[in-house]
Amino acid sequence: MDVALRRQYEGLRGALEERGADPDWVETQLRAQRVETPSWGYGNSGTRFAVFPQPGVPRNPFEKLEDAAQVHRLTGICPSVAIHIPWDRVDDYAALRQHAESLGMTIGAVNPNVFQEPEYRLGSVCNPDPEVRRRATDHLLECVEIARQVGSKVLSLWFADGTNYAGQDSFLERRHRMRECLAEVYEAMPDDTRMLLEYKFYEPAFYETDLADWGSSLTMCQKLGRRAQVLVDLGHHPQGTNIEQIVAFLLDEGRLGGFHFNDRRYGDDDLITGSVNPFQLFLIYNELVEVQTSGRSNVAYMIDQSHNVEPKIEAMILSVTTLQEAYAKALIVDREALRYAQRSGDVLRAHRVLLDAYDTDVRTICAKVREDLGGAADPVEAFRASGYLERVAEERREGAQAGWL
Amino acid sequence: MDVALRRQYEGLRGALEERGADPDWVETQLRAQRVETPSWGYGNSGTRFAVFPQPGVPRNPFEKLEDAAQVHRLTGICPSVAIHIPWDRVDDYAALRQHAESLGMTIGAVNPNVFQEPEYRLGSVCNPDPEVRRRATDHLLECVEIARQVGSKVLSLWFADGTNYAGQDSFLERRHRMRECLAEVYEAMPDDTRMLLEYKFYEPAFYETDLADWGSSLTMCQKLGRRAQVLVDLGHHPQGTNIEQIVAFLLDEGRLGGFHFNDRRYGDDDLITGSVNPFQLFLIYNELVEVQTSGRSNVAYMIDQSHNVEPKIEAMILSVTTLQEAYAKALIVDREALRYAQRSGDVLRAHRVLLDAYDTDVRTICAKVREDLGGAADPVEAFRASGYLERVAEERREGAQAGWL
Amino acid sequence: MDVALRRQYEGLRGALEERGADPDWVETQLRAQRVETPSWGYGNSGTRFAVFPQPGVPRNPFEKLEDAAQVHRLTGICPSVAIHIPWDRVDDYAALRQHAESLGMTIGAVNPNVFQEPEYRLGSVCNPDPEVRRRATDHLLECVEIARQVGSKVLSLWFADGTNYAGQDSFLERRHRMRECLAEVYEAMPDDTRMLLEYKFYEPAFYETDLADWGSSLTMCQKLGRRAQVLVDLGHHPQGTNIEQIVAFLLDEGRLGGFHFNDRRYGDDDLITGSVNPFQLFLIYNELVEVQTSGRSNVAYMIDQSHNVEPKIEAMILSVTTLQEAYAKALIVDREALRYAQRSGDVLRAHRVLLDAYDTDVRTICAKVREDLGGAADPVEAFRASGYLERVAEERREGAQAGWL
Amino acid sequence: MDVALRRQYEGLRGALEERGADPDWVETQLRAQRVETPSWGYGNSGTRFAVFPQPGVPRNPFEKLEDAAQVHRLTGICPSVAIHIPWDRVDDYAALRQHAESLGMTIGAVNPNVFQEPEYRLGSVCNPDPEVRRRATDHLLECVEIARQVGSKVLSLWFADGTNYAGQDSFLERRHRMRECLAEVYEAMPDDTRMLLEYKFYEPAFYETDLADWGSSLTMCQKLGRRAQVLVDLGHHPQGTNIEQIVAFLLDEGRLGGFHFNDRRYGDDDLITGSVNPFQLFLIYNELVEVQTSGRSNVAYMIDQSHNVEPKIEAMILSVTTLQEAYAKALIVDREALRYAQRSGDVLRAHRVLLDAYDTDVRTICAKVREDLGGAADPVEAFRASGYLERVAEERREGAQAGWL
Repeated sequence: MDVALRRQYEGLRGALEERGADPDWVETQLRAQRVETPSWGYGNSGTRFAVFPQPGVPRNPFEKLEDAAQVHRLTGICPSVAIHIPWDRVDDYAALRQHAESLGMTIGAVNPNVFQEPEYRLGSVCNPDPEVRRRATDHLLECVEIARQVGSKVLSLWFADGTNYAGQDSFLERRHRMRECLAEVYEAMPDDTRMLLEYKFYEPAFYETDLADWGSSLTMCQKLGRRAQVLVDLGHHPQGTNIEQIVAFLLDEGRLGGFHFNDRRYGDDDLITGSVNPFQLFLIYNELVEVQTSGRSNVAYMIDQSHNVEPKIEAMILSVTTLQEAYAKALIVDREALRYAQRSGDVLRAHRVLLDAYDTDVRTICAKVREDLGGAADPVEAFRASGYLERVAEERREGAQAGWL
Repeated sequence: MDVALRRQYEGLRGALEERGADPDWVETQLRAQRVETPSWGYGNSGTRFAVFPQPGVPRNPFEKLEDAAQVHRLTGICPSVAIHIPWDRVDDYAALRQHAESLGMTIGAVNPNVFQEPEYRLGSVCNPDPEVRRRATDHLLECVEIARQVGSKVLSLWFADGTNYAGQDSFLERRHRMRECLAEVYEAMPDDTRMLLEYKFYEPAFYETDLADWGSSLTMCQKLGRRAQVLVDLGHHPQGTNIEQIVAFLLDEGRLGGFHFNDRRYGDDDLITGSVNPFQLFLIYNELVEVQTSGRSNVAYMIDQSHNVEPKIEAMILSVTTLQEAYAKALIVDREALRYAQRSGDVLRAHRVLLDAYDTDVRTICAKVREDLGGAADPVEAFRASGYLERVAEERREGAQAGWL
Repeated sequence: MDVALRRQYEGLRGALEERGADPDWVETQLRAQRVETPSWGYGNSGTRFAVFPQPGVPRNPFEKLEDAAQVHRLTGICPSVAIHIPWDRVDDYAALRQHAESLGMTIGAVNPNVFQEPEYRLGSVCNPDPEVRRRATDHLLECVEIARQVGSKVLSLWFADGTNYAGQDSFLERRHRMRECLAEVYEAMPDDTRMLLEYKFYEPAFYETDLADWGSSLTMCQKLGRRAQVLVDLGHHPQGTNIEQIVAFLLDEGRLGGFHFNDRRYGDDDLITGSVNPFQLFLIYNELVEVQTSGRSNVAYMIDQSHNVEPKIEAMILSVTTLQEAYAKALIVDREALRYAQRSGDVLRAHRVLLDAYDTDVRTICAKVREDLGGAADPVEAFRASGYLERVAEERREGAQAGWL
Repeated sequence: MDVALRRQYEGLRGALEERGADPDWVETQLRAQRVETPSWGYGNSGTRFAVFPQPGVPRNPFEKLEDAAQVHRLTGICPSVAIHIPWDRVDDYAALRQHAESLGMTIGAVNPNVFQEPEYRLGSVCNPDPEVRRRATDHLLECVEIARQVGSKVLSLWFADGTNYAGQDSFLERRHRMRECLAEVYEAMPDDTRMLLEYKFYEPAFYETDLADWGSSLTMCQKLGRRAQVLVDLGHHPQGTNIEQIVAFLLDEGRLGGFHFNDRRYGDDDLITGSVNPFQLFLIYNELVEVQTSGRSNVAYMIDQSHNVEPKIEAMILSVTTLQEAYAKALIVDREALRYAQRSGDVLRAHRVLLDAYDTDVRTICAKVREDLGGAADPVEAFRASGYLERVAEERREGAQAGWL
């Protein structure tokens, strides 16, 4: 942190103190924040129209972990990496775990993939063909075992299941098939492992999606058991949905399992979180802080993005600092003033209490926290300056780049 | 039914028989169909920009029942009328019930109104002010009593509760306040009465709505008890929502309480049901028939529309015949062929089984059923020819027309 | 500005200078900013469900001007007021103008209202009945005359025209009728007066709206003449629309006439501008600054909001300061760095140049500018402290409050 | 046509005559209908998540033409095929043309592809790099030459150009770059060739698309010249957009160049046309018939779909018969009654005139027309029975299937 930045940081601390906030507490909370990055976010991805390869993209799970370690090195709050099977399938998961640990990292959520093989054309756990369901269930069970081997406590499930045409299949039969498969997997999970059930409004299914909204996921979780919880992906809602309310309701039901952070303006397009509506991201963190302060949460904070035209590691770092800033702003909300204004029906004062936190420039306090954790004040520029990308682009010239497919 | 229509009707029966359907069964089902019309659909309504008065609009609940009786007379399937309190408040509910019965009608769902009085500016059962909540709860309890007096078994609840600005109030506190109020009302309901809980994506609240989707309503019902069920209003979903899937899921959960039929292209704008996407309406009925055939449903079919520019009674008749035709088309779906195609993964054959029913012109069989029930083959034209509107326009010249406000 | 605020202000100036911006230039631009408030924003408004009266609401156009003068007094950048005819119809427009001038104000855009009278049920300038079109055209011509009398150079047109049902009317006949009416009005306008043509995606028409998007308005303007320009209301677009792009295109076509600022999450619901997505507002100002710096714009900046649950004057002040802050952030964008990053295809650096400006807390520089203009550092709190609302609530106890209808 | 179908057909003709329609005229119009199918609709396609290969998929443009010839053989109205370059690049275009002619087919619109090569990551004709723009323009010019060689009179342009992040590039510079490139291509086109300019709300660009709506395309066409016209793809609009109105407006401007038919519920997902809202498709044809009867149109009717889970040839046939039925229903609208009801402001009668046509089962008259043209009464079943797919699946076992990429 240079002198100018330091001066701004001191000014910010002073301003926070003046309005009754405790900058030390804020920094402590920020140092404890954790964000998990996804292994597939470092590989090639794209749209149905094109996948544009980028220099330096990893060729295997080990190299993905190395890229993820860069993000952690520069931000200090991203020590775990979610993996996707079979994209990250290796012969020796102990070796993968060891490689992670050697980088100061751990392996986070295990994400089965039951949507790419030709037999999944009409679905996986909802497929009308019992043999396909058996195969899908076996893959989920394999992932439970992989989770055990890599030391993960989270099985994160997203299903592409759905149909493209009215009449193509029965809503209820599909639902009952899913329930039967998931019950078997749930039973197989160790007691300390959670199953996160993600919903998505649409895509790749275009007439109906079997888990299309939080109500669908929640009712399924209710049938499975307490360790089945809902995963909220910010890009997976109809236009206009108030996501922060869903977050609050799921917390109230004790069923908020985790997040997939990203942003979108149109469909689910996996843009950098906060790049479309940063205020919404702040409001989501505001709900989390609200409940966290009363001590009930056990939430997995994960990024799930698809960096199609921008450099991937840089995009990941920017995402992490954005989440840091959203959290920091939520932490400095004057909750007492907020509660008072709400209860007295003072609409605009309550709103302005939130605006007052949101409008504050918290970048320096986040920079300070990153430095305290061994990271960088400006981690994007530090990454650019590090020469890492140029080096791996050279090292990884040969061989096939990892991608979604 | 004139000779030409009769010929078409016979042709249709023949065509149905040729593909293995039983026209007699279809007609029997159609004769048993019931649609409830809303008292407020006969009064003036409009948008926030204007309410255009129409000739002959009723001036009180008694006259609304008379208009509703016209719809029943011409269609034969609309013997009940939903009422709204206080719009339909009278001194003597026994007299209102008696008037209905004298017209061959009954009073259906009772709909409390807790959104118009100035004290409800910040909500009713979710209002931060306990006195306002008390008043709202008392109004709901009054409606339980009115339901008893008019012989209704359905309390139909829609709340305008929500907020316009982020931070204005706490999601969770609002939810807990609602639960407390509704629990009191639920306890007060007779054992044979159901509480239907309607959700709405937005409007009149524009930041968040306290019951915004089926998940919100369902989880609230779960907390209240088995006689609390979800009401699906077709206009109350985000763009693109697959409503027929929600219907199927609620049936599966045993929580589908009823419908408010209407249609919309943009926001919730209460157009004549089926006027925007008649195929969707057919698909909804298709799910209902699917489950009805296995005998599980107890669903209230109600219209909830706002006829702003078109004549109200005529619009109601057209809505009813549209629902009849959607149901008729759902009844002639070849379910065996559908199930076979679905289970064998034959995507387009399954889809075409639905299309085959939907593309069939069922108007004559519906006309026949109406005639069998004492109604008219072409009830809209019959209504125009009856001179009813001209007569009441004359009779109701003086006094204030009933409206929403 | 107290000492603490002053210190932050000095810190901000220093930080701006450090990165090459010129705080003096920024302040000069901010002092020249103008925002027009609408007379109807001070009267009662609401939704189709309810209009909640508020204490102190004006009873006539003169009192509305007085409320508007409060907003100008505290912000220094709102010297003009848009009026709506017939809501603001008076016997003596010279007196109205004089009253405005006595308050240090002027009268801005004149807004005809051709959507409330019963004859407009099927439209105004698009109505199938030529007599109704004549009446609507005459009202527009009356407004041209009123504009002359009050010294306004802007005729601001919004039409509720549209249909609710497929087939109700002919798209093309309606369009040709509108063109004919507007051509007559255009001819009648003095040479120094502009006609702004507003579009709206929907509401109150629910099947089609005759001017539904910028393409519809622009092609109509092309047929009328150069002084016909498009008015962009932020709430009048389909979900997801990139409004800043439309702004840029209209500037490029030389047809951006003005704005109606507000915000919305769902339908067109006239929330306080920036309260849903403040980043979007910044991006719009960013386009305006982009072009303004090359000197081509003549744009009317107007607020059009409907304050249903919150106090109206306070809401207006908050809107104005929000617009100020959005403009301030757009002014400090490092355009040279932006252009360089764009041209070299550096996606994330270009994006971060915008973020760097957006994340900056510009509130103190805006406060300073307001004070320089005779306004208040915190104009919302200053208004609360002024006792104005309590005073007029007392003075205006008797008589009917002004409203939309 | 078997006896039962024949009886229904005769019944339909009788019913049409009874209400004053001329079945012979309807059949004549239907025989003259033309629909162009896309070569790429016969190859593999999918979503970003998976492409599921299907048996019998063509391996080259020649085989695609053979599949298209099947669709024409069975429907009689699809004699032309749109091609995509480079997906359909061949050494000898004369040979391709000859192959088409030997199958009784012609080659229709030529579609350049400037979105898949790595250099198009940041756009093609809008790319900030002039060398990329040069390459894209050269490819467009190559397609002009290919069109000449294959005898096509239509250059059909869709650009994936857009950006993913605010600030990534300048709206106006991108627009000016596009204009410059297209002007060069426009100049190079023979006088009898039209340029169709397609717009798309979003995807694959997720922050802004350079041609995002009809206004963007139309204003670009205005700058290019009269032979530049707008192409309307049904799936490329925001939710709720009234597409039939856009069609009417473009016809009015003399700029409706053609259609890409498909349907969608959520994003642009290229489902079988009419499978989500068949009523909308009817309304679009209704506008076309409206204007066609007054003889002004020169419109290219093309299908553009992506058959991800269903068999491709079958899906294409179903799409064609759906378009036939939509057109047939539009042809039997009682336009005199419609016009009369519209002009007299009879909202529901006008609406019911459309419904009366839409509710009519026109399948038999379409079947008759297909038979008259040498096709099949039930072309989907006829295709299944033909053994074509099984035969080519065998013949095309070896070699790479054609696909999007």
